[in-house]
Amino acid sequence: MINAFAANEQGAELQPFQYDPGVLARKDVEIDVLYCGVCHSDVSMIDNEWGLSQYPLVPGHEVVGRIAKMGEEVVGFEVGQAVGLGWHSAYCDHCHHCESGDNNFCSEAVSTIEHRGGFADKVRAAANSVVAIPEGFDLSKAGPLFCGGITVFNPLVQFDIKPTSKVAVIGIGGLGSMAVQFLRAWGCEVTAFTSSEAKRTEAIDLGAHHTLNSRDPDDIASAAEQFDLIISTVNVRLDWNLYLSTLNIRGRLHIVGVTLEPLDLEIFPLMMGQRSVSSSPVGSPKVIAQMLEFAKLHNIAPVVEEFAMVDVNGAIQHLRDGKAHYRVVLKR
Amino acid sequence: MINAFAANEQGAELQPFQYDPGVLARKDVEIDVLYCGVCHSDVSMIDNEWGLSQYPLVPGHEVVGRIAKMGEEVVGFEVGQAVGLGWHSAYCDHCHHCESGDNNFCSEAVSTIEHRGGFADKVRAAANSVVAIPEGFDLSKAGPLFCGGITVFNPLVQFDIKPTSKVAVIGIGGLGSMAVQFLRAWGCEVTAFTSSEAKRTEAIDLGAHHTLNSRDPDDIASAAEQFDLIISTVNVRLDWNLYLSTLNIRGRLHIVGVTLEPLDLEIFPLMMGQRSVSSSPVGSPKVIAQMLEFAKLHNIAPVVEEFAMVDVNGAIQHLRDGKAHYRVVLKR
Repeated sequence: MINAFAANEQGAELQPFQYDPGVLARKDVEIDVLYCGVCHSDVSMIDNEWGLSQYPLVPGHEVVGRIAKMGEEVVGFEVGQAVGLGWHSAYCDHCHHCESGDNNFCSEAVSTIEHRGGFADKVRAAANSVVAIPEGFDLSKAGPLFCGGITVFNPLVQFDIKPTSKVAVIGIGGLGSMAVQFLRAWGCEVTAFTSSEAKRTEAIDLGAHHTLNSRDPDDIASAAEQFDLIISTVNVRLDWNLYLSTLNIRGRLHIVGVTLEPLDLEIFPLMMGQRSVSSSPVGSPKVIAQMLEFAKLHNIAPVVEEFAMVDVNGAIQHLRDGKAHYRVVLKR
Repeated sequence: MINAFAANEQGAELQPFQYDPGVLARKDVEIDVLYCGVCHSDVSMIDNEWGLSQYPLVPGHEVVGRIAKMGEEVVGFEVGQAVGLGWHSAYCDHCHHCESGDNNFCSEAVSTIEHRGGFADKVRAAANSVVAIPEGFDLSKAGPLFCGGITVFNPLVQFDIKPTSKVAVIGIGGLGSMAVQFLRAWGCEVTAFTSSEAKRTEAIDLGAHHTLNSRDPDDIASAAEQFDLIISTVNVRLDWNLYLSTLNIRGRLHIVGVTLEPLDLEIFPLMMGQRSVSSSPVGSPKVIAQMLEFAKLHNIAPVVEEFAMVDVNGAIQHLRDGKAHYRVVLKR
């Protein structure tokens, strides 16, 4: 039996929940959970914001643990090995996207939360969705890399960002704080946009070269035609057209924060600079592995606050209250 | 003296207009105009739609002619040579963009129309904005390539479109009819979106493999996740989010038709497919030269209707009435 925490209905506090995972499938592994990050999308799923949730729902998709059991066809892992599991817990392995290494676009991909997530003592997943954590990595901080981290790291790989690029990050929170660290180590000149004075100092400490006030039109306008890439991590509506004006020729505004209001983009600021606006989800296991190596090399780790897993409801409330600084991790 | 046609005030019919261009500058050439295309942006400038117009305004920025005179520092051209002149008639040659071959983004670029355009017997321009037309090219059809043509050709170069890509063109008009021809010759599988039954047949004749009704949601939805690139040439608001759903993973909706209403883009269709939305203006002289060679090799030419230059007002009215099929060219 697996001892988990589940929401039994929309928006509910989590309750202890036991389930029988059955016989271990031939290509699956069972992971002893050590840590699990709490991501804003766990809250969105508990609240059924996206209409996808089925209850009882076991959240948790930033899992760090050790391989406890392996199905008989699993290769490339060993029992006791430190691994992580993110948004997806299985891929089909035979579609065009999987064959291209783009498993994250597999239409048969299983979401970890929709299956059974990592707020539990154990979690199961197909081995093809599990990523080994490099030796010596601080496991207590690795969890948030598997969703928040890869969400901001993946665009650097996908869009072939150069160390000579000038980049900006909008919003210094869970994702933004990791983005600043990655981009600094990537070699880029990094500007952080934040509306909080305290976070301006913190952004500098995380590696930003410059900070600007994300709510001050004059501050934003002062950066006209500066940035080759802007990663927006906020989930509120901003003056997107003003931000477009801060993009260099061929610049890209890449949005990873979900805003439910449509982007109201004008054509001329896009056209005159051959600019792009885009978005992306999490990355593939291959890119997650690259990220972990890069993070280890450059001593990059999420800034985390630790809660005991039994205090999962306290951790979720902390996040709901906007107090997370910057990512919350449950320790079993 | 140069004998031109000019609008003397906003929205006015053109009148004969003579001006003295002065001494030929050392880096300029004087072109004897043979043909000049009439582009929708000539009409927008006559009407001062963009608030940029100064009167008397000599429109015309799809100029084809022969070098009549060269300033003393001009090299690489000879008198009598067939050349074309597009949206820009001078670049600074020393800014970062010019040095990178991206002259079209030079902030000191002079717009041909804002200077003095090609609805005239002669026009002057800096030699660095003039492009030689390959031997044997049909000069009577070359004009529209210098604005409309390069606008749809440039994205294929800028975004490194592959012959294995599946592409779509929205709107079979002046730009769309050229885009279909370029993309067919590029090796791509081409779909044309048009709301006109007659144009569906014409799109096939121009090289489209498939056509779909741009106003039929079912037709559009049938192309879900198909296209690596969509070039939209229309200047009306469409259901952009529905079109986003027809993009493949990593697909791009590239908009070259100016719509004054903002694009109301939702995040999820962008995010789930790592999709981009972008726009671009005309291309650099280097890419115009590539386009001309490519067009010659593949026998690509705009479909044009010829008017005598003295009938310039009739030609403009034809365009205003939406009757152009597909590009109007003035012959001197």
